[in-house]
Amino acid sequence: MASTTAESTKQTANSTTRRRTDKKYRHVFATHSQQRHSCLSQDAETSPSFVGFRNLMVLVLIVSNLRLMIENYRKYGVLICLHCHDYRRQDVVSGLLLYLLVPCHLFIAYVIEYIAAQRAKAALARMKRAGDSQDTPSAQRAALRSFNATWYTIALCHGINATFCLAYATKVVYYNIFHPGIGTVCELHAVIVWLKCCSYAFTNRDLRHAYLRPKFAQALPAIYSSCPYPRNINFNNLCYFWWAPTLVYQPVYPRTSHIRWPFILRRLLELSGLTLIIWIASAQYAAPLLLNSLDTISTLDIVSITERVLKLSTISLFCWLAGFFALFQSFLNALAEIMRFADREFYEDWWNVSSIRTYWTSWNKPVTNFMRRHIYSPLVGRGVPRSVAQLVVFLLSGVLHELLVGVPTHNVIGVAFAGMMFQIPLIMLTDAVQKIKGMRGKVAGNMIFWASFCIVGQPLAALLYFFAWQAKYGSVSRQYAESPTMHLLTRR
Amino acid sequence: MASTTAESTKQTANSTTRRRTDKKYRHVFATHSQQRHSCLSQDAETSPSFVGFRNLMVLVLIVSNLRLMIENYRKYGVLICLHCHDYRRQDVVSGLLLYLLVPCHLFIAYVIEYIAAQRAKAALARMKRAGDSQDTPSAQRAALRSFNATWYTIALCHGINATFCLAYATKVVYYNIFHPGIGTVCELHAVIVWLKCCSYAFTNRDLRHAYLRPKFAQALPAIYSSCPYPRNINFNNLCYFWWAPTLVYQPVYPRTSHIRWPFILRRLLELSGLTLIIWIASAQYAAPLLLNSLDTISTLDIVSITERVLKLSTISLFCWLAGFFALFQSFLNALAEIMRFADREFYEDWWNVSSIRTYWTSWNKPVTNFMRRHIYSPLVGRGVPRSVAQLVVFLLSGVLHELLVGVPTHNVIGVAFAGMMFQIPLIMLTDAVQKIKGMRGKVAGNMIFWASFCIVGQPLAALLYFFAWQAKYGSVSRQYAESPTMHLLTRR
Repeated sequence: MASTTAESTKQTANSTTRRRTDKKYRHVFATHSQQRHSCLSQDAETSPSFVGFRNLMVLVLIVSNLRLMIENYRKYGVLICLHCHDYRRQDVVSGLLLYLLVPCHLFIAYVIEYIAAQRAKAALARMKRAGDSQDTPSAQRAALRSFNATWYTIALCHGINATFCLAYATKVVYYNIFHPGIGTVCELHAVIVWLKCCSYAFTNRDLRHAYLRPKFAQALPAIYSSCPYPRNINFNNLCYFWWAPTLVYQPVYPRTSHIRWPFILRRLLELSGLTLIIWIASAQYAAPLLLNSLDTISTLDIVSITERVLKLSTISLFCWLAGFFALFQSFLNALAEIMRFADREFYEDWWNVSSIRTYWTSWNKPVTNFMRRHIYSPLVGRGVPRSVAQLVVFLLSGVLHELLVGVPTHNVIGVAFAGMMFQIPLIMLTDAVQKIKGMRGKVAGNMIFWASFCIVGQPLAALLYFFAWQAKYGSVSRQYAESPTMHLLTRR
Repeated sequence: MASTTAESTKQTANSTTRRRTDKKYRHVFATHSQQRHSCLSQDAETSPSFVGFRNLMVLVLIVSNLRLMIENYRKYGVLICLHCHDYRRQDVVSGLLLYLLVPCHLFIAYVIEYIAAQRAKAALARMKRAGDSQDTPSAQRAALRSFNATWYTIALCHGINATFCLAYATKVVYYNIFHPGIGTVCELHAVIVWLKCCSYAFTNRDLRHAYLRPKFAQALPAIYSSCPYPRNINFNNLCYFWWAPTLVYQPVYPRTSHIRWPFILRRLLELSGLTLIIWIASAQYAAPLLLNSLDTISTLDIVSITERVLKLSTISLFCWLAGFFALFQSFLNALAEIMRFADREFYEDWWNVSSIRTYWTSWNKPVTNFMRRHIYSPLVGRGVPRSVAQLVVFLLSGVLHELLVGVPTHNVIGVAFAGMMFQIPLIMLTDAVQKIKGMRGKVAGNMIFWASFCIVGQPLAALLYFFAWQAKYGSVSRQYAESPTMHLLTRR
């Protein structure tokens, strides 16, 4: 330090001489004048930024997939064709019928609730009269007790209505709709309506209960006060719930002030663009890959199956991410905007999760909200241990997943259900891993999530259901075997 | 706000009732109680973190390359074999002779400098005598002028010595060493010694100049004062420069206090591990790929060449990064530790550069330091415009690159030189791009760097030199054509 100061004083004094000699003595400049560390050494005080390697990763991903696209094109040419999409007339007719009939069950639920509301009004009037005639509370209690039978009748009616809705739709999809795409849409619609029916029944049950016990009424959420029970039991209110992007019934929802049509247009453009991209990706990349995998699965060669699953993982991951964005961001936001539905939290930043538990509570908020309000919370409220309540939620979720995948592919082989059940040990693992101190635990948890999600989860399940479909029908390969494109596909 | 406060007061008052009803009325909880935006919407106040997608990228890269490794194994089996590495006895003999003889030129340079120092001492003594006899400054000037002839003689001797060193080594490598690996090592060694000879001559020229003009002596860097000219012209000092991890001669270098042997051991372990990995990567992945590419190059099919270059880019990038770390981090740090050389800045964080100009000044600091001190800075000092000086540096760098790649492969086809020249328009492009405001310009500049570096740069050059080698010798394919492994290689 002292020598540096001394030197700098000297420098200033001789600056004129120095400037001349600096020009002259270029070859003697002291390049190495102090101790310095390589920036990647542990000796270095600060670790350098690695943002360039992030950019490199993006580039390598683009490049390697570009190369695979060239390879795919050279092997198969263009596989995308519009008229190749074949479906039976009966599938479309059954699908349309289901689409029209399934929502009727929501209206049946409405009728049930309407009758229940009339009965509740009558019961309340009777209680009021009993209250006026001063023989409270025994008379009131008697009036309430007289309503008990009504409770069970209503529950039974709702149960039959909802169960029939789901069971009948499932039967039609399984037996009458051959095309797995049409089947999936119909089954998804039936499940959504079933969940809405359940939520409508459960919520109105509690609202009615509070209505009959006025001292509890103030415990209801403040937002409901603008439309108290039984005023909410009306046709418009039900129709709003029918179309609102939520599975949870509320008499009143937060609303936006107006509809932004340009917003809707942008979301619909995203939706159509993404749908097109997913279709191209499936037809050009996933389809030949799945067909190629049939031999390897039937020979049970573990190395080959691993190779196929790994190759499938990128494309299935891509389709999943695009599909997620199309459905949860573009479609639900467009629908919410049309319905002036203000709560747009359809998902959270699930891609950053360090625990698989958090993933399941944040990727699909509509279903999470339903499960939390109508399954988990009531069970815990009734004294069921939290872990058992979680298990019940996962069991129900597993059944719904199997319905949505197994029924349209006509193979209820239990893989989707088993996949959901497999989440439970994974949750335990990531819960433990993410507690490792520092960033490492979080990163490791996130890595385990992605690995299980995009390698073991999606592509393996897709492969197994595709194999099961081929084993049952074999129609795709038989049907296409005569076409020249499919001859190419038999080469790997 | 007011309503919230009012509500919270009510809440506190009715907390007991509330707790009971909370347990009861689980189904009415207001899930949707406020306006919220989807976190990926533009409406959202803050953009969510995407750190999870960074982890996903790492995972996808691992997975897709793991898959390619499985594919490679299933196609070719294990290609790595020790006894397959064939080299001629003459190559090893010539290589060893070069390794022993090339450094002799450093000692010749030392002898030249030793004689020059003696002459300078004599000249200074004469000047001093002239100064003492009071007929300054004309006598001093005459004494200096008498030394002028010596300047040119010294320059000529150094020029002949250094040029002969490089020219002879290049001749031997081109004509007598067939194996490109041994050739590259010999040529690299010759270029390093040539640069060291040049730096030794240039630096001592300036030191001597300052020595003969004592009033300029104080303009020399302070660090040199512990070993002033001509004391630095001694055998030990030269030997230190010979082994020091730098191309720039200084009489004195910053030194560390002691040698940390565990540090050296770790660096050498890294070096051997990385060398092994690079060897496996080349033998198992790069070699079959290069052989496969021969047909596509000879047919000049652009799509196929692109596909091959893209496939080669990942493996060449991997080898380059591993090689960079092995040479600049592990080897040079180990050498520096042995030599107690304290300035370990052999590279900067070039992976983050947003301009290709910065890349060339930061990835290889030893050469950059040489070019800056002995080419660029003296030229600018003599009034040459900066852009012309840069061009000269790039021309010299291009010639050296061609020497290092073209000579050992016996194909001076100018691709390496052209590659260096191609950097100049790229520098102009990235200089312009990185000025785009915000982070985007920097990211775009970095992307252009990586793209040019790992797609156009490395793999295309590797492919072209390999093709030129095959066109000239064809020996690898002919030699291996009879072996069963290479039959496999002819399948793509």
